[in-house]
Parts: sequence; structure tokens; C-alpha cells
Amino acid sequence: MNTTIYDDKQFFEAYKEMARSKEGLAAAGEWHELQKLLPDFSGQRVLDLGCGFGWHCRYAADQGACLVEGIDVSRRMLARAREMTMQSQIHYKEASITSLVYEAASFDTVISSLALHYVADFESVCESVSKWLVPGGRFVFSVEHPIFTAEGSQSWHVDADGTRIHWPVDRYFEEGYRETTFLGECVGKHHRTLTHYMGALLQHGFEIIGLVEPMPEAHMLVDNQEMQDELRRPMMLLIAARKK
Amino acid sequence: MNTTIYDDKQFFEAYKEMARSKEGLAAAGEWHELQKLLPDFSGQRVLDLGCGFGWHCRYAADQGACLVEGIDVSRRMLARAREMTMQSQIHYKEASITSLVYEAASFDTVISSLALHYVADFESVCESVSKWLVPGGRFVFSVEHPIFTAEGSQSWHVDADGTRIHWPVDRYFEEGYRETTFLGECVGKHHRTLTHYMGALLQHGFEIIGLVEPMPEAHMLVDNQEMQDELRRPMMLLIAARKK
Repeated sequence: MNTTIYDDKQFFEAYKEMARSKEGLAAAGEWHELQKLLPDFSGQRVLDLGCGFGWHCRYAADQGACLVEGIDVSRRMLARAREMTMQSQIHYKEASITSLVYEAASFDTVISSLALHYVADFESVCESVSKWLVPGGRFVFSVEHPIFTAEGSQSWHVDADGTRIHWPVDRYFEEGYRETTFLGECVGKHHRTLTHYMGALLQHGFEIIGLVEPMPEAHMLVDNQEMQDELRRPMMLLIAARKK
Repeated sequence: MNTTIYDDKQFFEAYKEMARSKEGLAAAGEWHELQKLLPDFSGQRVLDLGCGFGWHCRYAADQGACLVEGIDVSRRMLARAREMTMQSQIHYKEASITSLVYEAASFDTVISSLALHYVADFESVCESVSKWLVPGGRFVFSVEHPIFTAEGSQSWHVDADGTRIHWPVDRYFEEGYRETTFLGECVGKHHRTLTHYMGALLQHGFEIIGLVEPMPEAHMLVDNQEMQDELRRPMMLLIAARKK
């Protein structure tokens, strides 16, 4: 990934205008499912990998977390996150996910929303998170679904009129870097199989306690063809794992 | 499903000629991965749901299982299974998977190979298997991958020359019955999401200990375009779960 795409002025301005950027969690189609996978944050120390505008950090703090560390590689994202954050228990840090160093058992929960498909080495993330969590601590994350990232174009197969025929899957077992267009810019992501996600978690001492491919909430589907098309293929994968 | 398609003479004759029917486990592209998910069968009581020609039953017996019960709905399949079986600890029974009744803790391991996508109610299977297994017992099964069953046609999207362009995914969250053509006959299957498989297992007291989308072994790929295309999309899903 070009890790600084979120610091690209043009990209950032476009990203800032997305519903989930302006309205936060309630405008994110997967939030109602992600929320169910989260623990009771009361008194918890929470790490958010790829915190962006800090919506999940503020949620954790509002739910009683005593310490929240939000990590992001983008200076622009963090600047906006800080502007929107009043809670003193939240700290933001500019860093890449793979550069982080913490003592063992530093956190009760580690969350990550739509950031880990930007990281090349998921094994190393699992290894680190497993170390940083207390026994019984939870690792809850969302990524783009392997079916969404496999072929690479991240766009529907359409007919001559532009009608969406189906979602194309190809190169599934050819893991690695993919470049796609998002908000008019070239964005790099890492495609991994479901086997890879699950294998790395199990190997690093996690128990899987939830796996959900979220559908939009019913009210989002009404008179919204774009949202209805989200029922035609999975776009995201949410996983909740517990350190044994 | 038309549960008796395997008793259809024409279908059965075609099925009997498939490599996996004639040569058994070694000719099944997923066997090298399924095998790794199986327990040590020594002294175990094993149930095989949808045993077909009994290849997995004989394997379990050869590996030391003291009792193996093979269940299938097809009389023709079981007749052939019995012809090929010498081990006295294997018993075959003609029954549908959902009609079975066993005492609690009757088995140490329950296996099922490519049969459960013929069953409409996976929750009820999970509930039953969980009851029939001893604590710590393993449920290991393969099914057609949700990505393989979603759209329904189970065929590649091809261009005018018949070249395979990509695999089509559609109707993913529209779970239920699909009719497709297999060996020249209409075969009915039940499409379920990955979320559904995982949720049902977790809800019925299973811990996930392995999840694999198998790739063909390297030697099968050599000079074999058909097998190489198997790397373009996942066809099967293997899951190993342990009763807590």
C-alpha cells in the first residue's frame, strides 16, 4: 500500500465527505454487526489499529474504557480525530501498525476497522496482538472480504448498458498486493484468503468467537439500489477472536 | 434436494466413473487437507454423514476406529460401499442425515464429506452432532464453498469462445435452494453463507479448530488447466470443530 494515501490532499478531502466520515458509526453499514462483537469496555485498556477519525476510540471511551490508544499512519486523519475528541483517556499516535512496540498484556481489547487489508504481514499482526492482549482479551476487526479483494478491480461485471451482472471472482489463491481505484485515487491493498485469516489467528493462540459477513440494516435497503446490491456479494468480513 | 439423485441409474453410473469414486481418497483434490483435520482414530467410535462409497469409513477403520457407522440416503451407493468393505467394525445404514437418532455421547468423531450442502437445516445438524459427540469430540466436514454455490449455475463466466473469464458471484445473502447440473442431471443444493456455517457451529457449543479452503496438490496442477483453474476461486470449505 501507499501508506500515505490518506494524507493525499485530494483523497483526504473526498474521504472526509463520505457518510461514515461525517456521521460516524451510525452511517457505516457494518456497524450494527461489529458492535455486537465488541466486549463490555468498562475499565478496559483498548488499542485501535488504524483508528482514522477516531470514531471507534470515542465509542470505547463512551462505553467506559479507561485508556484508549488510537494508531494511524495518516497525519491528516489524526488531526481531524483530535479535533473531534474531548475524552482525556484517548491518545492518538502516528505510526504504522507493524512498527508498534508494547509490553505483553498491555491491552484488554484490540480493535481494527477496515485497516488490516492495508498490512502485508497479517501473521505478524496476530503474533503482536496476541502478545499485547491479556489472556481472555479480545481482538475484533473488520477487513474487506477475500471475495471482494480477490479479482482486483473491486467492481461489478457489467453489461454494455452498465447493468451489474454479477461480482467477478478470480485469482483467489494468488495472495498479495492489488491496486484498485477508491475515491478517484489508486489505492493498494493486500488480498488474503479466508484460510489465511483463520489459520493465522488459530496458530497464534486465538479462539474464534464470532465471524460475520455483515448485511446492511433493513432500513438502509429501502429505495436504495446500491445498498440492495450489497446483498449480492459479501464486501466485509468481521472476526472476533479471544486470546486463550 | 432430490435426495435420491444418487439412486438415479444414469447419474449413479456417471458418478461411479469419477476419479474419486474409482480411486478413492487419493484422487480427491481436497483429501490432503481434510486428512490433516482428522483426529487420531485409534479406538474411536466414528459416524460418517453421507458416506457414499465408504472411503472415509474404511480410512477411519484402517486408522484404528473400533466402530464406524456410515450413513447414506442412497441404496445404490451403500450397495457399492458394502462390496468394497471388508472391515467388520464398519456398519452402513440407509437413512437421511436429518432422520438419525442416537444417544448423547455416542461418538468420538463425526465426519461428513461433501454431503451437508444437500441438507436444508444445518442448525439442526449442528444441534444433533453436538449431542451425539463426547465432550472434546470432533466434527470435521467439507461442503461446497458458499462462493461456489451462491450464484447458482456453478459454472464459469465465459466469453464467446468459451474461455473462462472469471467466477460469477451473485445472490450471496439469498440463502436456500439452488438447482444446478452435475453429471448431466439436475441436482439440488442448499446455499448458505459462511456466516451461517460459523454461527451455527459456535451457537451449538463448538470451538473452531481449523478452517481450510483446499487447493489441489502441486503435482495435480502440472499440465492440467482444469486443476489450475481451481486456484482462481475456492470450491470447497473444510471445517474442523471441537465440542467444548
